[in-house]
Amino acid sequence: MEIQIEQEILARNKKIALENARLFKGNGVFVLNLMASPGAGKTTFVLATLQGIGQVYRVAVIEGDVASKVDAERIKKTGTPVVQINTGGACHLESRMIQKALSHFDLGELDVIIIENVGNLVCPAEFPLGEHCRVAILSVPEGDDKPEKYPLMFHQSNVLVVSKVDLLELSNFDLEKVKQNVTALNPEIKIFTVSCQTGQGLNNWLDWLKDKIARFKKAQ
Amino acid sequence: MEIQIEQEILARNKKIALENARLFKGNGVFVLNLMASPGAGKTTFVLATLQGIGQVYRVAVIEGDVASKVDAERIKKTGTPVVQINTGGACHLESRMIQKALSHFDLGELDVIIIENVGNLVCPAEFPLGEHCRVAILSVPEGDDKPEKYPLMFHQSNVLVVSKVDLLELSNFDLEKVKQNVTALNPEIKIFTVSCQTGQGLNNWLDWLKDKIARFKKAQ
Repeated sequence: MEIQIEQEILARNKKIALENARLFKGNGVFVLNLMASPGAGKTTFVLATLQGIGQVYRVAVIEGDVASKVDAERIKKTGTPVVQINTGGACHLESRMIQKALSHFDLGELDVIIIENVGNLVCPAEFPLGEHCRVAILSVPEGDDKPEKYPLMFHQSNVLVVSKVDLLELSNFDLEKVKQNVTALNPEIKIFTVSCQTGQGLNNWLDWLKDKIARFKKAQ
Repeated sequence: MEIQIEQEILARNKKIALENARLFKGNGVFVLNLMASPGAGKTTFVLATLQGIGQVYRVAVIEGDVASKVDAERIKKTGTPVVQINTGGACHLESRMIQKALSHFDLGELDVIIIENVGNLVCPAEFPLGEHCRVAILSVPEGDDKPEKYPLMFHQSNVLVVSKVDLLELSNFDLEKVKQNVTALNPEIKIFTVSCQTGQGLNNWLDWLKDKIARFKKAQ
């Protein structure tokens, strides 16, 4: 009974995710879904990404949290259009929440939407939202054992960003082990190492992302 | 329909949690439920706690993870009895999982069980397991905005441990703000600040815990 309900929820989520994807394609909007633990640095990474592509592309942000407007307020200060979704108790965003949030934007006036999911390494991986690119962020202070403990997240993502690498020297985080374990789960994954504090590695990510968006736009 | 199913799941969880609680009381076993984000340092904190109370009390550990035995293996090295629960996909432990895990222990031979929940700041707070003390851990690198974003966890816990405080100087984490926000959510909460790297603050936690266990034992 419960399993059946769960499957119905996942099937309905997938259906609306496809509707979202059609809408994004129809309007030429490239969509990122950022997923990570609480405190991995998602919002700071969104801000760094906005700074890197905001001159070239028209970007909007959707912030997902159980409660509060803390993240949306940080984004708002940059002048970027932003919608905050509060899930109430839910530990992940669902495609219907995105569908509803889209009514706040004029999609024809946008090139990119960055969705910041609820801080959680488990359930967001089960709920596609209609995005083109799924980005998992793993911060150095969390430790190098996360791909073993939360395999689905790393299996499902197109990109892994290892964040806060300025703290590598202070920790016993084994970057090579993480790369090996994640690549074993997902041979196609693209891995970046960044520090939003020092700026290290951000250009590699931004160059890759700009190229990805340009190809998407060209294919329209 | 979904809400009804959810309420049934929560009600069933509560029922089995009460059964667990009766079993713990009947055998004089004091039980801790440790909850935190992935990578907040739960297992390291369990190891430090084992070192602090393992000479006085007979302790066992239950490790919860979506996948892997990484944590159980770390505990096993200390000679402490440990059971690893792998939830498959579930983002939290449920009381029935604990009930099943208990069959691996001789409860009459134990004084304390430490349960390490799945790394998640959302759902574990909704699923009591029959424990006497709920401990939320918040690590400094996660940032000081977590009580605002994940209020239920801080509202439901008896203890907040702010961990990795050796990193306070490197961050803009506002400890006073966290204390204020958490106390506003939960005036009864007891707050400790610790670093398992330097040992700072651990004695305060251990003294409090030993006193708590002694009172529990005395009341048997």
